[in-house]
Amino acid sequence: MLALLRPALWFGGCLRGYHMPVATPLQQGDTSLVLVDEARRFIQDCLMRVGVSPSKVRCISEFLVVADYRGNFGNGINRLDLYLSDLQKGHAKANAEPSIISETLATAHVNGNSALGVVVGNFCMDLAVKKAQSAGIGFVVAQQSHHFGMASWYAFRAVAHGLAGLVMSNSAPTMMAPNSKSATIGANCLSFCVKGRDHHFVLDMATSVKDIGAVEWAWNNDEYIPHGWAANERGLSTCLPNVALRSPLLFPAGGHKGYCLSAVIDLLCGVLSGAQYATHIPLDQNQPSNLGQVFIALDPGFFLPDFVERLDDFCGCIQNSQQADESEPIRLPGELEGMHMKYVEDLRALPYPNTLLEKYKTVADRLHVKPMELAFERCQSRKSF
Amino acid sequence: MLALLRPALWFGGCLRGYHMPVATPLQQGDTSLVLVDEARRFIQDCLMRVGVSPSKVRCISEFLVVADYRGNFGNGINRLDLYLSDLQKGHAKANAEPSIISETLATAHVNGNSALGVVVGNFCMDLAVKKAQSAGIGFVVAQQSHHFGMASWYAFRAVAHGLAGLVMSNSAPTMMAPNSKSATIGANCLSFCVKGRDHHFVLDMATSVKDIGAVEWAWNNDEYIPHGWAANERGLSTCLPNVALRSPLLFPAGGHKGYCLSAVIDLLCGVLSGAQYATHIPLDQNQPSNLGQVFIALDPGFFLPDFVERLDDFCGCIQNSQQADESEPIRLPGELEGMHMKYVEDLRALPYPNTLLEKYKTVADRLHVKPMELAFERCQSRKSF
Repeated sequence: MLALLRPALWFGGCLRGYHMPVATPLQQGDTSLVLVDEARRFIQDCLMRVGVSPSKVRCISEFLVVADYRGNFGNGINRLDLYLSDLQKGHAKANAEPSIISETLATAHVNGNSALGVVVGNFCMDLAVKKAQSAGIGFVVAQQSHHFGMASWYAFRAVAHGLAGLVMSNSAPTMMAPNSKSATIGANCLSFCVKGRDHHFVLDMATSVKDIGAVEWAWNNDEYIPHGWAANERGLSTCLPNVALRSPLLFPAGGHKGYCLSAVIDLLCGVLSGAQYATHIPLDQNQPSNLGQVFIALDPGFFLPDFVERLDDFCGCIQNSQQADESEPIRLPGELEGMHMKYVEDLRALPYPNTLLEKYKTVADRLHVKPMELAFERCQSRKSF
Repeated sequence: MLALLRPALWFGGCLRGYHMPVATPLQQGDTSLVLVDEARRFIQDCLMRVGVSPSKVRCISEFLVVADYRGNFGNGINRLDLYLSDLQKGHAKANAEPSIISETLATAHVNGNSALGVVVGNFCMDLAVKKAQSAGIGFVVAQQSHHFGMASWYAFRAVAHGLAGLVMSNSAPTMMAPNSKSATIGANCLSFCVKGRDHHFVLDMATSVKDIGAVEWAWNNDEYIPHGWAANERGLSTCLPNVALRSPLLFPAGGHKGYCLSAVIDLLCGVLSGAQYATHIPLDQNQPSNLGQVFIALDPGFFLPDFVERLDDFCGCIQNSQQADESEPIRLPGELEGMHMKYVEDLRALPYPNTLLEKYKTVADRLHVKPMELAFERCQSRKSF
């Protein structure tokens, strides 16, 4: 609950009780509302069935619901079936704990021991924070980790201690180099978060134009994807999410620059950590992934006493840019997510595509848990965020 | 000389004596050849005239010539007049030395004391290397620094010790946020370099589609710039380098992703260091800049014994991508620069636009030094690199 409330408070809102949802105009029939508590209950029931301990179940459900709450649907409940399937196959171990292979005052090399990504990530960032509090910086790399979802979840943990957090992960190869028609690297993600008094800078981005979760979301929502997100098998842009998902070929953001940035992330997360990297990470979900991740915490107090005021002023400089189109304000990274959180608070529920809800009915049947109960059938999802 | 040779050796080539240049076909008359030793002699003569000590003069001339040798013309001799002008105005101090404000085992906060960027950068990276050798990582931030040229110069210094180097700098606001028509942030640069046995990964990029040096180079070379590099005063794309230089408005690489990455760089280099940042950095060259920079060295030996082999394998994975166009190989970052170095070695001289050479004739007159002597008038510059 605390983790769910925290980001809301940062953005000046807060989650209220999850009673009857506010009615929204019916413009499309593809999305239904599920109360936040009900989504959390469903995730917890499923995880308990595959043998995850109660304390971990609470953490994982919070982590998935917060991603949906922030509008990061690609890393929310959408990922639950991957986690369930990997836990059942033994590719992720339900109650494993990470361990430290080696460390210095400022660094650590961690073995995730095939625990779920959020378990490894929380462990590593907490370790990085401790190191930063004594050495100014904490740099932790993990091997034998799993899909860790929304990267900013971990960067937030550093921010909660008044530090800056920088988090990266590698992933299965879904992205093409410019002039290539095969995926050799993941659309590896990067998050940088830091908090001032009035402003928050919450960057959470994939190095592709859009991540694979956004394509899956479009597929679940029965929507086309814009040109320039993904390619077909010949390396040409496609608007069909099913074609894009068949043999994922995402375009890098900014051409070779996004590709190179992704390679730097893989060099640090995969090559340096001892995890898999590049084409060695299996796309096939029948094999364990052994992902690598990097967690950096940085204590601004070791450098400047007035960092918070300077950060607020910096954010003001960005927001005061002259708008080319006056109806579109210049936004800081994380502002759109803040707007989505406000939207969820107004609805008091999460909007999920019906195709996704149908998929989880099958999962519920298979695991013998109660399916997610709808709060309000068919609503407008305001996908324009 | 050593610094100039080193990158050549990394790429499997070496600089041979600078005698008569190899004749190249005459296709355009805008570029002339200058022997490497002659370019170095000219830079040193100019710097001596404005009071720089002999040891610093050698370092700065090497640093500028290496940038041109690697084809990074925006940060080569092109920058000499900025340095001369700032030294004469007192915005950069000819013989100042950086000092440490505070430090831990793994971090340092450095005051550049308005020394030239290369003096501050060399000091900071050497400090980061020392810290990395004992703590696994060295993280050094500098304030009161100056334009530091080619970022990979400093990352190379870490690589020369078997470490990985990551370097960033902020810069005067020349880049627009998406939907903006004013520049609020620099096209801040990032370099990451690491060396395997067979491969080298040498990333050196600006966060804009192209940096301002490339626009200046096009202007000096009397060339148009492609659409999408820079905008006119209304925020619309322009092909005219003089319009693009009037009130620099560069487009970020990958839209908001490049912009956000640049903001992260400014948060670390400017906001955290106590230097200027965002719109506080003067575009006007009549004011001192007070730039901020970050230098990170990372010792892979603290994490894995076989990092070098894994890095070579990673580079192989990238190079083995399936080509969409078979005539265009998939290149690693730094390979194009390697090709340019080979080209310079074949010519045994550096190709400079005649407009740039004309500008330095004026500088030579003003400072009473011998102008650069041409090795070969009018050559093909092979700008396709």
